[in-house]
This record gives sequence, structure tokens and C-alpha cells, in this order.
Amino acid sequence: MSSPASDADALARFFAAGAREDDADHARLWAALQDASEGGKRVRPLLFTSAHTAMGGVHMQAAAEVAGALELLHTALVVHDDIIDGDDLRRGRPNVAGTFMAMAVREGAGLDRARRYGTAAGILAGDLALVGAVRMVAMCGAPPLLVRRLLDLLDDALHVTAAAELADVRLSLIGGALDGEAVRVSAGKTAAYSFRLPLQMAAVLAGADDHDTERLGRFGWLLGTAFQLRDDIQGVFGRSERTGKSSLSDLREGKETALIAHARTTDRWDRIAPYVGRPDVDETDLDAVRELLHESGTREFVETMAIGMAQRAADEIVGMPVESTLRVWLAAVTRDLRSAA
Amino acid sequence: MSSPASDADALARFFAAGAREDDADHARLWAALQDASEGGKRVRPLLFTSAHTAMGGVHMQAAAEVAGALELLHTALVVHDDIIDGDDLRRGRPNVAGTFMAMAVREGAGLDRARRYGTAAGILAGDLALVGAVRMVAMCGAPPLLVRRLLDLLDDALHVTAAAELADVRLSLIGGALDGEAVRVSAGKTAAYSFRLPLQMAAVLAGADDHDTERLGRFGWLLGTAFQLRDDIQGVFGRSERTGKSSLSDLREGKETALIAHARTTDRWDRIAPYVGRPDVDETDLDAVRELLHESGTREFVETMAIGMAQRAADEIVGMPVESTLRVWLAAVTRDLRSAA
Repeated sequence: MSSPASDADALARFFAAGAREDDADHARLWAALQDASEGGKRVRPLLFTSAHTAMGGVHMQAAAEVAGALELLHTALVVHDDIIDGDDLRRGRPNVAGTFMAMAVREGAGLDRARRYGTAAGILAGDLALVGAVRMVAMCGAPPLLVRRLLDLLDDALHVTAAAELADVRLSLIGGALDGEAVRVSAGKTAAYSFRLPLQMAAVLAGADDHDTERLGRFGWLLGTAFQLRDDIQGVFGRSERTGKSSLSDLREGKETALIAHARTTDRWDRIAPYVGRPDVDETDLDAVRELLHESGTREFVETMAIGMAQRAADEIVGMPVESTLRVWLAAVTRDLRSAA
Repeated sequence: MSSPASDADALARFFAAGAREDDADHARLWAALQDASEGGKRVRPLLFTSAHTAMGGVHMQAAAEVAGALELLHTALVVHDDIIDGDDLRRGRPNVAGTFMAMAVREGAGLDRARRYGTAAGILAGDLALVGAVRMVAMCGAPPLLVRRLLDLLDDALHVTAAAELADVRLSLIGGALDGEAVRVSAGKTAAYSFRLPLQMAAVLAGADDHDTERLGRFGWLLGTAFQLRDDIQGVFGRSERTGKSSLSDLREGKETALIAHARTTDRWDRIAPYVGRPDVDETDLDAVRELLHESGTREFVETMAIGMAQRAADEIVGMPVESTLRVWLAAVTRDLRSAA
């Protein structure tokens, strides 16, 4: 699973080709977008590339383009997600919206106007990234029939992601989750485009048949769901310096994670509920919530669910040439779970 | 210039193929997006189709797909533009964001939460439309070399549009327009994707050479700029029942139109400025502003500029097979101008 330079090359070419130095507004927007596309762990290109290689894929140039497109798609969704969530920071630094907000403030705009400027920049930058991602796949150079299937997969993943994001906002703002819905929604937000899509695209580009492509799709969904459950757990129990985000933010936002959804069904909920969605929750409160999530069996329940997903995922790929490669990904998810337990 | 059924058919197929009845969130989002795509004047598909036909284009099925994609692109940009502008209405009815806001309010959410839900829906619906538009072009069935050029044109138009939108927001929120900038920005927001893009796509799909494609591109830019200037004039001088939007809204928003940009340079500006960007401007104020824009020579200046653009546009297409078709479009813009004068 060494990191190939090629998806980074494809992205570098994309940003070089799209630059328009003669337009100051475009130059600022483009620079902020390129900045947003960098510094991540490149999980999606890595997953795609490792699977494509393990399956004996030969369209190497097209693979680099698709890998770059996956990272760009992720950038687009993150930039728009931050607008939806009202976040100005990402990994502790101003995101696209935050960068433009700060620019407006420096030029003397009030906070409300600055925020509107930031929102505009975030929406527009995400739009350019989204269109860029689809175009990179459309022009990746693979045989036309494969390109068509890749575009279908990309489109499908986007539909699932958009619906899950909307459901996520609905649940956190309006409430009323049905049993199991929070887990499905939370997984749908990332499993579809971050795990299932890279694996299905790798299968298609490597010439796998429909049966194997579907198996990898199911594997990706299960892996992605396990990953999301682990993320939910670490969002409360992880240490900030390790996860890179505050362990308080999920609680403060009142995020309808798998933990919260399960906790609702336990007899500790009356004591947990007052902390959820309160913007002034502090470290002492967090410790109390952690203890309650232990007592109620919620933490164990969600961890067991994640490990179960990972086991079902492992069953999907038995005997496939890609099995050993993907087992490394599974191990990365479950190892973290057990160390947290 | 009769309306062909085919772009509507292409869009109907697009929405039918994208429907997912088993996901209530997706179904609501998709229905709102389809609703947003209907009821417009289909200016872009009509312009594209009339030019494609006049140039003897033969890829009729691909043309229908491209025409549909142009309308879908317009829908995407309008839906996102409404979020950027904070508008909940479009043509007097709730837009995507407004529809979801109303839904949240009915379910008991407060106004702030309802607005965040509406914003999320608008961003996500626009994303699906944007990706759908690129995909429709990528899969339109024209020869691969043409598809590549169509995608390049689409991408270019989006970059120009995004930069112009960002500049527009910057000017209206932060101010500081340079001479001529307001006209360029205002034109760039619509001329690139609504006029230049349909004409260049028509030229490429009809097999025109680079020279003619460039001529049509310049024609489209000039026509689009004239159209936008006329729109700015009608935004203040038009009757609401005819333009479909209130003649007060440009003033109330403090929109940096060509009229305002010119008025700034005249000796009436001190008397006009107090009305600009004031949310409580009424019909009496509007009459006063109209009178001042007359006295200052602003109205005549902008009308003359628009007519000059239309004349330069006419010069671009002399002797082309498409000339008579496009003269009809030019006449529609200038006739309105003169009747308003």
C-alpha cells in the first residue's frame, strides 16, 4: 500500500490547467480550492489504487486520473459539507469559507457580510471541484464502455451521499430518528463515496466481472460502515491530539451518531440527554458522558457492531486476488477499535 | 425557433433514471430539483437548438442531451445562486431551499434550524444537478473527440461563471468596483454559460471549424452582455407584471448593476446613493430613482451601450449560415430596449 505519486500528479495537472491568473477572483478561489485538496490522508485514492493494482489493472494512466478524481470529489463534498454545518475550520485551519471570511473582514466588512462572502466562495469552489471530478473520470482515457460504467458508479455514489447528508441534517435539526436510521445515515454519508465507490471503480477499471464488482461493493459498504462507527466512537472516546478534532465537538453539535442513537434506547438516556447539543459542554461533562455510555452498554454495543461489520466484510472477499490487500484495510479499522476498548 | 420536445424528453429521462423511491430524503430532494428545472423559458436549450439546426448539425440525439444538460446546468446555478443570495423564492414560489425550510417549520423546527435545513437541501440539490449536467454531456453519444471539446467548453463556462459570481458578491458586500468592472461581472455571470456556451456547443456539435466557433463565442458574449444590460434596465424601469420580479428588488439588495455603476460617476449620485441597498425602498422612492437615472443620463448611457453590443454582435455573424436565426435573438433583445426607451 505504498502511496503512488500519480494521483497527486493528476491533481497537480488539474489545478495547473484550471488556473486563470488574469482573473483575481478566480485566482483566489482556485488557490483556496487547491489548498483544500491538499494535506489529507488520501484514503480514497489509496484504497482505489491498492485494489486496482491487486486486481491486476492495466490502465495505469486512467487509474491515476480516477484516483485524483476521487480525492477531488472528497474535497468538493467536504467544502460543501462545511458550509452545511456552518464550520469555518478544517483540520484546525480556515477552510475555503473561513479563508474568504477572513479576507472580507480584513477589507473592513462586518461579520454577517463576511460570512455571506465565505459561503459564496465555499459553494462556488465546491462546484468547481465537483465538476472537475466528473470531468476527470469522463476524460480519464479508459475505453468508453468502462468510462460509462465509472460515471454511473460516481453518479450513484453522489446520490446516496446527498440523500444521507440531507437525512443527517434533518435528524440533527428536527430529530425523530427511526431505529437503526442514525447508523444507516451516518454510514451513507461516507461509506458510499469513500469506500464502496473507490473499490467498485477499481474493479471496473481492472476488468472485474459484475459478480466480483458487486462483492467489492458490499465489502466497501461494510468497511465504510465499520469505519464510521469507529469514527463515532473515537469522536467521544478518542484523544484530540490523535483524531485531530476535539472530542467535544460531536457532543456540542448534538450529532446523531450511532452512540447517541443507541444511548437513547437505554435507561441512562435521561442523564445523557442534557449534555447533547449543548454548546458549552466541557471536559468534565465529557468524562461524565463517557462513563454513562460505558454503564449503559452503548460503547460495547457500537464496538461489537463495528467488529461484526468488519467480519462480514472479510467474508465477502474470501478467495479473491484482492483479499490480502483489503484485509490490511480491515485490520486498520478493527485494530483501532480494540485498542480503544 | 419552435421549441423542440427533445431537450424536455432528455430531462424527463434524466429525472426518471435518477429517482429512488425507496429513500424518502432522496425522493424529496429529487422532486424539488425536478420542480426547479421546470417552468423556465428554456432560453439556453432554445438558443443551442436553433443554432445547431441552422448550422446543419446532424447529431440529433446528442443535441437533445446537450440541450437538456444546458437547462440542468442553469437549474444548478440558479439553485446555488439562491443560497448565495439568501433567497427562498424563485418566480414567486418557494425554491428548493424555501421548500425544505417550509417542511422543517411544519415539523416544528425553529426558523434558524429550518433555514439550515433549506440551505443543506439547496446545496445538495444543486450538486446533483451540476453533476448530472456534466454527465449528460459526457454520455451524449457524440463522437469522443467532440464530447471532449464539449466538456472543455462546459468547464470553461463554469469557471468564468463562478469567478463572476464571486466578484458579484464581493462588489455588493464589500464594494470597491473598478471602472467597468460591474458590467463585466454582471455579464460574466450569465453571458458565459447562458449565451456563449450554448452557441459554442452548437458550433462544435455541428462540426464548425475553430474560426466559426470563436466567432459564435464572441457573438454569444456580446449578446449575453446586451441581454444583461437590458435586464439591469428592466430591473429598475420594467413593470413587475412583465419582468416577473419586483422592480424594487435590485435597489433593495444594493445590486451593483451597470446602472448603479454608471450613476456613481454622475453628479446625481449623492441623491441616488441613499436609496441603494435600503430594504424599505418603496414605489415612491423607485419613481424618484428612475427620474434621477434619467436626469443623470445613466439610463441613456446603459441603453446605448447595450445597443452598441448588439450591433457588434451582428457584425460577428455576417455571412454565416446561422446569421438569420441569430438575428432573431438579437432583435428580441434590442426591440425590448427601444420599447423601454
